[in-house]
This record gives sequence, structure tokens and C-alpha cells, in this order.
Amino acid sequence: MAAGEGEIEALVAMMARLPGLGPRSARRAVLHLLRRREVLMAPLAELMGRIAATARDCTRCGNLATGELCTICADPARATGELCVVEQVSDLWAMERAGAFRGRYHVLGGTLSALDALGPEELGIPRMVARLGAEGISEVILALDATVEGQTTAHYIAGLLAGAGVTVSSLAQGVPVGGELDYLDEGTILAALRARHRV
Amino acid sequence: MAAGEGEIEALVAMMARLPGLGPRSARRAVLHLLRRREVLMAPLAELMGRIAATARDCTRCGNLATGELCTICADPARATGELCVVEQVSDLWAMERAGAFRGRYHVLGGTLSALDALGPEELGIPRMVARLGAEGISEVILALDATVEGQTTAHYIAGLLAGAGVTVSSLAQGVPVGGELDYLDEGTILAALRARHRV
Repeated sequence: MAAGEGEIEALVAMMARLPGLGPRSARRAVLHLLRRREVLMAPLAELMGRIAATARDCTRCGNLATGELCTICADPARATGELCVVEQVSDLWAMERAGAFRGRYHVLGGTLSALDALGPEELGIPRMVARLGAEGISEVILALDATVEGQTTAHYIAGLLAGAGVTVSSLAQGVPVGGELDYLDEGTILAALRARHRV
Repeated sequence: MAAGEGEIEALVAMMARLPGLGPRSARRAVLHLLRRREVLMAPLAELMGRIAATARDCTRCGNLATGELCTICADPARATGELCVVEQVSDLWAMERAGAFRGRYHVLGGTLSALDALGPEELGIPRMVARLGAEGISEVILALDATVEGQTTAHYIAGLLAGAGVTVSSLAQGVPVGGELDYLDEGTILAALRARHRV
């Protein structure tokens, strides 16, 4: 190792905790940074520090924000009466990349899990229900993962909102665009078959 | 995206430039950091900034250092008369992890390449030759990659040191420990066969 080897090893260990990186790739990444100390490492550290210091959770929807509200909640043009419920901020980003939804979000931060002691309160579900009247929501779109956990949570929310006077919908399941049947699991093919439509 | 979305996107773009990360995994890594702002993101930024500000190249061997000399060059116990020539700091780390070499290093920072305008001067080879007398080196161990570029550079250095009164050696080639013949390339098997020894 090098001089300052303790610090460099500590940096490697921290980087190795990031998803997609292990000890070996973290070491390669740190060496890459060390070779580009002025043009990459220092600016990256500065930007990361600034974001860490200013980022917070939107008090309304749970999205990342720099102030009280995130840009989506603060944007009056997005008060469309549609609320999209997602598990994670990454899912919100994925929805935004698709560019098809113009309403607002509610980020649960996870799925119902007895094991992890995540109940409706921890996921901010009462807070979400309170938003329905306050923001004049007419449709709640459940954009949760097509996993057992995601669908269990979706089922719970749908049950909770039955009779609340809002439409509750869910993302369609089917063959992904560009998907090859040969590589799809049976569950997806079954879902796509059940949801088939006339052409 | 979130509030401060421009900055977060900039961070994702920077992280995506690290080896082993692409746009998608960089986004996952940044979200992971954002969820652990106080316990991971802020300390990581702080440590990275400190290292970027203090790390420099050892003026003698090219290893990473915090002062004029790296810990290895500054350690009198490592003046063993053996000098190990490596391409990159990562190779030096790999040698140190193996723990079998107790001498000092010379980091070339690359291999001879007309394409990249890397000649002997750029790789610090004259500086390495000057060290031989100054540090009383009796053996130069060429620990360069077993690639065409690495071996071309090794061949050049070996030629340069012929008649310089030092032993020049090179890492052995053969079957890696735990290696399965079935998965090895023909070149390695051929090299291992040629270097076979009685048991």
C-alpha cells in the first residue's frame, strides 16, 4: 500500500459498500480516482459533500429535496389529481425517465414487512391517505414492483382505499418492450396472456 | 429526478466514469449514498476530499505518497538491494498483498507505447536506472503484465540493463494456483510446460 495507506484502505472499504462494487472493483475505482486527483477525485468529493449536506426528504411525498418540498411537489403544474405510489426514489426516477406521468408521487420507502417491522405507519401510508382530500386526488396509481412484497403492499393499499372515492389502478403486467418470449418467465407470459387485447 | 436534480445527475455522471460502474449502477450507488447521507455519503465525501488534497506521487518510485517519499521508500528496512519494476500502483498493491517481496519498487505508470507517446522518459526508466547505483541495487525484478505491451517493455528494460552489473529477473509464468487446465489458454499451458520442473 502507499503512504496514507490507512486512509486509502478506509476509502476502498467505504466504496466497497456501494451496490455493484466489491473489494476488488472498489480498489480499481479508488486507483482510478487517485490517478485523476485534480480533475475527478476532488470535484467528486466536493459535489458529494455538498449534496450530502443539502439533500433531505420531501416532507410531502418522500422524494429527495433540497428544501421543504421536492421540485415535483412544488410544481403547481403537477397538481393533476393523479397520485403515483412507488416503493423507492429510484422507482420515481424510472417513472420520470419514462416521461409518461405528469402527476405527483408518494414514495413509501419500502414494502410492508413484518420481518423488518415496516407497517403502514413506517411507509407513510396514513400520510398518503391524508393527501387524497388535501390535494384533490381522483386516481391513485400503484406503481409497485411486481414482486410478492410489492403486490402484497399494493393489495393492502387498494383495500384501504376501497370506498374512499378514488379510482385505484395499477401498472399493467405483460411482455416488456423488446422482450423475447423465450427469455421470459412463465409468470410474465401467463400475465400477458390473461391481459391480451384485440389488435 | 429530485430537487437539486442537476447536482444529483452530475454526481451520477461522475460516478459512471469510474471503472466497473455504468450509468445504471452509478445511479444505484448514488441512491444508496443518498439514503445513507449521514453515515456513509458525508464521511465518504470528507475522506475522498482529504485524500485528493494530500495524495501525491513518491518522487523516488512513483508510488502514492502523502509526503516527498512513500512509506516503502522511507522505510530503511526495505533497502534490500532488490528493486521490483511494476506498471501501475495497483500492481504494487497486488505485490504487497502477496507479502513475498521485501525490497523497493519502481512504478512505470504504463508500458512503452508509440501510440500513446510513452517512451522511456515518460515511464521514468532513466530515473530507475539512476537508482541502481544510488541505492546499491543488485537485482531488478521485472513484474510487468504478461501482455504483449508488458513483455515488450520488460524486454527493453532487460536489454538496457545488460552489462549494468545487476541481475535482471522476471516473474515466472505458469498455471495459476487453483487454476484448472480446462479453463486456461494455450499460451499459459505452453509456458507452464516449458518451465516444468522435477518434483
